[in-house]
Amino acid sequence: MAKDYSALLNDEGLAVKGVNAEEKYDGAIIRVYREEVELPDGKHAHWDVVRHLGAVCVVPIDEDGNVILVRQYRYPAGRVMLEIPAGKLESKDDDRLLRAKKELKEETGATCEEMICLGDIYTTPAYVDERITMYLAKGLTFGDTHLDDGEFLTSLRMPLEDAVRLVCDGKIEDAKTQAALLRVWVMKLEGRL
Amino acid sequence: MAKDYSALLNDEGLAVKGVNAEEKYDGAIIRVYREEVELPDGKHAHWDVVRHLGAVCVVPIDEDGNVILVRQYRYPAGRVMLEIPAGKLESKDDDRLLRAKKELKEETGATCEEMICLGDIYTTPAYVDERITMYLAKGLTFGDTHLDDGEFLTSLRMPLEDAVRLVCDGKIEDAKTQAALLRVWVMKLEGRL
Repeated sequence: MAKDYSALLNDEGLAVKGVNAEEKYDGAIIRVYREEVELPDGKHAHWDVVRHLGAVCVVPIDEDGNVILVRQYRYPAGRVMLEIPAGKLESKDDDRLLRAKKELKEETGATCEEMICLGDIYTTPAYVDERITMYLAKGLTFGDTHLDDGEFLTSLRMPLEDAVRLVCDGKIEDAKTQAALLRVWVMKLEGRL
Repeated sequence: MAKDYSALLNDEGLAVKGVNAEEKYDGAIIRVYREEVELPDGKHAHWDVVRHLGAVCVVPIDEDGNVILVRQYRYPAGRVMLEIPAGKLESKDDDRLLRAKKELKEETGATCEEMICLGDIYTTPAYVDERITMYLAKGLTFGDTHLDDGEFLTSLRMPLEDAVRLVCDGKIEDAKTQAALLRVWVMKLEGRL
């Protein structure tokens, strides 16, 4: 039986408590706070916290074992990146599975027969609360794309193995794309894809 | 020979140009801007951009094949997370390799004989410019830890395979930790660790 590591996720002795939150910026997709917190030793500190609704991303695999990727200019990085299809939630109670299906359709034109949840990532949990739920989509059928206003991207297919090689060679640098592609690759190597 | 995908990373037709940046918050570890940009169709839009110095993270593997992890409370997520050792740069020209060695020592007490670069991730490139360089550390020797002031964490060892299982079971949710552990696991499965 696998060892039980659940005690490692216990907060005891490490928890940090929020004391006060001062809003510094209310933007289009983020809110930024300077928060006063109480550390485990009782001392107080001030931390930057970025709050975001969260997002979803999808690894779409076609019947030939290709993955569908999108090319999109990422302004903060200053260049085009290869990523899996993804999109942010539109409200706090947005349904993540439905949002994933919608983003897949909008960005690649694909609908899927099966959407398997691969769990979540926190993109950079030291100062951002964004949680992205990852999915694997199988049984793809392709139709038209419907990009959001102001969204510019193109989609393409390549063998999953080639995409994993681009991750390992440093050509795919987006964190969610690396994590999700490697997860699916490990599933394939273990015969579970 | 592997197919050449380099043309996919060409910006042509997708580039977004910065027109104006209005600083909204100058925090302890981030600066936040509302930026006016010119889209590929010539239209203008306003985007939130968070700027951060960047960071490093390390997958430390001991001679028995264990990985060293740290437990740390992540305030934006509201709970303790299991992560690989990591730390942010302290200046724009901070040396990433030296910073990685320093963080490894501070958080786990380990020094290493070999530090292998695994490339970079952008944590969430739609609105944050943070780039984290990932390393694999081998040939570990353990001494004292030296945590930063206000830093509370504990370190532990477990077999790499168990850590990968925790990733796949959704118990390790930090993006850099997922990406780096899965990378090292694929290296191991391919006989390159």
